[in-house]
Amino acid sequence: MEYKHILPGDIEKTSMSIIEGELAEMGIKIDESIRPVMYRVIHTSADFDYVKNLRITDGAVEAVVEKLRTGGLTFITDTNMALSGINKSALSKTGNSACCYMAEPDIAVAAKERGTTRAAVSMERGLAEYPEGIFVSGNAPTALITISEMIRQGHKPSMVIGVPVGFVNVVESKEELLQVCEEFGIPAIIALGRKGGSNVAASICNALLYMASDGVDPDKRY
Amino acid sequence: MEYKHILPGDIEKTSMSIIEGELAEMGIKIDESIRPVMYRVIHTSADFDYVKNLRITDGAVEAVVEKLRTGGLTFITDTNMALSGINKSALSKTGNSACCYMAEPDIAVAAKERGTTRAAVSMERGLAEYPEGIFVSGNAPTALITISEMIRQGHKPSMVIGVPVGFVNVVESKEELLQVCEEFGIPAIIALGRKGGSNVAASICNALLYMASDGVDPDKRY
Repeated sequence: MEYKHILPGDIEKTSMSIIEGELAEMGIKIDESIRPVMYRVIHTSADFDYVKNLRITDGAVEAVVEKLRTGGLTFITDTNMALSGINKSALSKTGNSACCYMAEPDIAVAAKERGTTRAAVSMERGLAEYPEGIFVSGNAPTALITISEMIRQGHKPSMVIGVPVGFVNVVESKEELLQVCEEFGIPAIIALGRKGGSNVAASICNALLYMASDGVDPDKRY
Repeated sequence: MEYKHILPGDIEKTSMSIIEGELAEMGIKIDESIRPVMYRVIHTSADFDYVKNLRITDGAVEAVVEKLRTGGLTFITDTNMALSGINKSALSKTGNSACCYMAEPDIAVAAKERGTTRAAVSMERGLAEYPEGIFVSGNAPTALITISEMIRQGHKPSMVIGVPVGFVNVVESKEELLQVCEEFGIPAIIALGRKGGSNVAASICNALLYMASDGVDPDKRY
């Protein structure tokens, strides 16, 4: 078998060039302001459908990257898998943090008592503890439904990353979230349709962190 | 917005029915022996491309599920993200375990000294410590290249799950692995083409564990 001989640190750069080349062949040019996010999502999924599906509200990337540069923000995820995929070096370098409440015992208790999901309770906890956090869902539409309701009630997170994957209430919850974020001026990155996932969620967080940190040792990204 | 009112525990069942229904509409029937794996991969990705891409060597699922039922097997992953996505309740219920060496400092040192990747060194370490392990790659083609070489040298892991995603050496490393596994009779589940990822890798591990454990509390799956 013939492999390309590329140093580990150059694989990502080569991948991004391939993505750029194939987009150009399709006659697609991604606006510079959102390019690192779009390319990283395609890099993570090998799925060019995201060019059509991924919606980024006006100025969202610039606004949140500026805040991440200042530091002190927290990403609140709806799976430990997404949390695990967020680059810890980039978080530390930029002075930001990330957490996930899903595995905490009191979250399970509260969800059971109220007949709702742990993801919904986790997002409520996150909005209470980090009102200006970045809320990240790669899994649970109920996380998005909760965030949409809380934005309508006046909450103002710094950003919502809404990319759950699936077949039940996923499409609807993402459409509603996009509408709510546009109405209330909340920066949002949302993958319309069924596709998404914890890997896509983490890749968006990382793209934003890399933009804010202006380059992190690529060997530390996984 | 109108949502389907479905109890959290029933969402997965409903999703699987939707997947089955859409496959039937496409005139596709998945063989019963591999159905839980295929459905779970589609459930995790919302991507029906896997019907064409996912290759499972003859009898692979039956063989590994039988071993997982006995217990004592270890999944060795090439990302902490895939490790994080493997259901810990199902591991514990079946008496199996999972590990990832990627973040261990001596792995980074060895990779740097030898000019290779941490994933390659991790797989070598895994094959040394768990010769009958299940080797899981959702990220690094170099992990697969290493495993292919070691199988040629006589190693006999219980299974290789080869589903890295990406644009450089990914397609080639998966094709070679499939060829090697078929030649040496090693059970394998491989997503040909560019697509895959840590989420897909974890979903395959979980499908096998659920088959071995005959049902795990669905609330504990994420």
